Amino acid sequence: MGTFETNAPIIFQTINIHTMQDQSESQPQFGKYDLIAELSKCFPNDNSSTIVGIGDDASVIDTDGNQTVSSTKVFIEDVHFDLTYVPLKHLGYKVITVAVTDILGMNAIPTQVTVNVAVSNRFDLKAVNELLAGMEACCETVHVDVVGLDLSTSRKDLIITVTAIGECEPARLVTRKGASENELVCVSGDFAAAYAGLLLLEREKKVFEVNPSTQPDFSGKDYLLRRQLMPEPRLDIVEALRREDILPTAMCAIPDGIAAAIMQICRASDKGCAVFEEKLPLTELAFTTLKDLDIVHTVAALNGGDDYELMFTIRQADFEKIKNVENVSIIGYIKEPSAGYKLITGDNVQVDIQAQGFRN
Amino acid sequence: MGTFETNAPIIFQTINIHTMQDQSESQPQFGKYDLIAELSKCFPNDNSSTIVGIGDDASVIDTDGNQTVSSTKVFIEDVHFDLTYVPLKHLGYKVITVAVTDILGMNAIPTQVTVNVAVSNRFDLKAVNELLAGMEACCETVHVDVVGLDLSTSRKDLIITVTAIGECEPARLVTRKGASENELVCVSGDFAAAYAGLLLLEREKKVFEVNPSTQPDFSGKDYLLRRQLMPEPRLDIVEALRREDILPTAMCAIPDGIAAAIMQICRASDKGCAVFEEKLPLTELAFTTLKDLDIVHTVAALNGGDDYELMFTIRQADFEKIKNVENVSIIGYIKEPSAGYKLITGDNVQVDIQAQGFRN
Repeated sequence: MGTFETNAPIIFQTINIHTMQDQSESQPQFGKYDLIAELSKCFPNDNSSTIVGIGDDASVIDTDGNQTVSSTKVFIEDVHFDLTYVPLKHLGYKVITVAVTDILGMNAIPTQVTVNVAVSNRFDLKAVNELLAGMEACCETVHVDVVGLDLSTSRKDLIITVTAIGECEPARLVTRKGASENELVCVSGDFAAAYAGLLLLEREKKVFEVNPSTQPDFSGKDYLLRRQLMPEPRLDIVEALRREDILPTAMCAIPDGIAAAIMQICRASDKGCAVFEEKLPLTELAFTTLKDLDIVHTVAALNGGDDYELMFTIRQADFEKIKNVENVSIIGYIKEPSAGYKLITGDNVQVDIQAQGFRN
Repeated sequence: MGTFETNAPIIFQTINIHTMQDQSESQPQFGKYDLIAELSKCFPNDNSSTIVGIGDDASVIDTDGNQTVSSTKVFIEDVHFDLTYVPLKHLGYKVITVAVTDILGMNAIPTQVTVNVAVSNRFDLKAVNELLAGMEACCETVHVDVVGLDLSTSRKDLIITVTAIGECEPARLVTRKGASENELVCVSGDFAAAYAGLLLLEREKKVFEVNPSTQPDFSGKDYLLRRQLMPEPRLDIVEALRREDILPTAMCAIPDGIAAAIMQICRASDKGCAVFEEKLPLTELAFTTLKDLDIVHTVAALNGGDDYELMFTIRQADFEKIKNVENVSIIGYIKEPSAGYKLITGDNVQVDIQAQGFRN
């Protein structure tokens, strides 16, 4: 780290930071996940209670018995959500799902959340109450307590921070690292519906901007909108894995699509994988809607994001047991590292899996 | 909470939130702390592991042995810091101090932090590295691990979120609630220096805006600038209290001045207090600088903020022991609730203590 000059003179500056664009030639292009890995190197972990540090869904701290799992998520208006079409109650529900999913992605049980809300004078008390009501509704579904609430001022945008805390018996904790060759890659739920919902909302927003007197008609698309606006935390999956006595070998949340998730597990486990296109779980509604929108459904499932499902790898010996867990699909298997990350298409062609945030 | 209508139609809106100003007549004026208390009512705590919920410096979770203490802080550019004069390394150091101080304010030992940084393309990798280097420097001084790091995009401003986690034996944990009549009110360190530093920086910023070719001269004011830009976490105080076997009866961090801190303890404990103006610890430098700036030094100590010291109440029986703890001042004592919150001035006049964020 080097020395920290506490008495260095304070330099006033009007522009004290360079733009990323200006320096694009002089520095390597990092993806988000590469950058986090790179920056993490300056943070050595010394405390004996630190079990899992940077680079997984959540951090894990030993507490003389169960382990405490925690993860913090930040949501910024017009970066992570658009209040033109996102109701505040739904937004409150979703931010809890997103934060809690990181705990579930470690095979842990979420128990508490803390919430920080930064608002400008665009928002009144009723608006804040709507947001918190949505949060509480989601917390109730997964039996989580809101144990911290802080308010602050923002210049204009709504900024929401949620820290989720959970607990796990040490023997049940599952990180991204631990997948072995020939193990099965499982995912919960279905994919690309949330992305299709986003595309519909964004399309209708453009119509609305031209003619604000119209309101969109989403009839028949309820499932897609609900997947985008109010995804459910998959506590049921983590509970079912316990009930069936299945201990995944590696596990992670799926916030950014199947591709990023499988790459996280394979990288952390130093393995390759094969994922079968025809095994990707999509609803008929997502499939037909994406077709109408001229979007390749496989790309939407791999890279669309916002699904907040879980991915985990299991031993072949657990194949019979996993059939007892509803809403789980086996989409592929783990291979040797040199196999790379491959999608096997319907006509048996191998395609490299790619994901935003990774350098290829 | 009522039912949550998942299938409610999505309403598109250009302005979907009212301004606080427009409604100022129709709704009561809440201070920040009142508002948090009001909003907290919709969050019942059900999990048996929840020991302390909303309304203290940090939340506390029981983990079959030690208790896990956690607190999340959000820092927004131009709301909480000004990059015209705050170097990124100092900023990194300060945000860790602020977050960790909430853990210390529960008499707990900080052990881990997680960090989220949202940056726009105004910031390059070097800038992010500076920020993280400052964080790491502060973490090193208090032996804390950075166990989580997430990056995201902001539209323009730098937004930093720090979650601090700590641990405490249940018998050592001290909340804001627990002060009894005739107990002594203690504070660590000195006050108003950070506020004086802020005033100097803001004054010179105005000069700089008129004439950007000049650089300010802060010679002789180093201590004030350091208190504002790079405050130190008071781990030494929490360690000294353990060493001297002093268990405070109530305790809190002092982010917003002595007034807000004493009111938090008195409200939570349902007590009144008397604070002696002449006992407020100020350095000569802060005193003279504030005088030059035409600021009443007592007001700066009570309401200036940014000190990040600790306040705690102790039994009179611990009076001899507390003398062995360096950098602690006794500034007053706890009274019956009807006594209110009083400042006793040098000429023995009683003045009501007031603080921003509280309804009077």
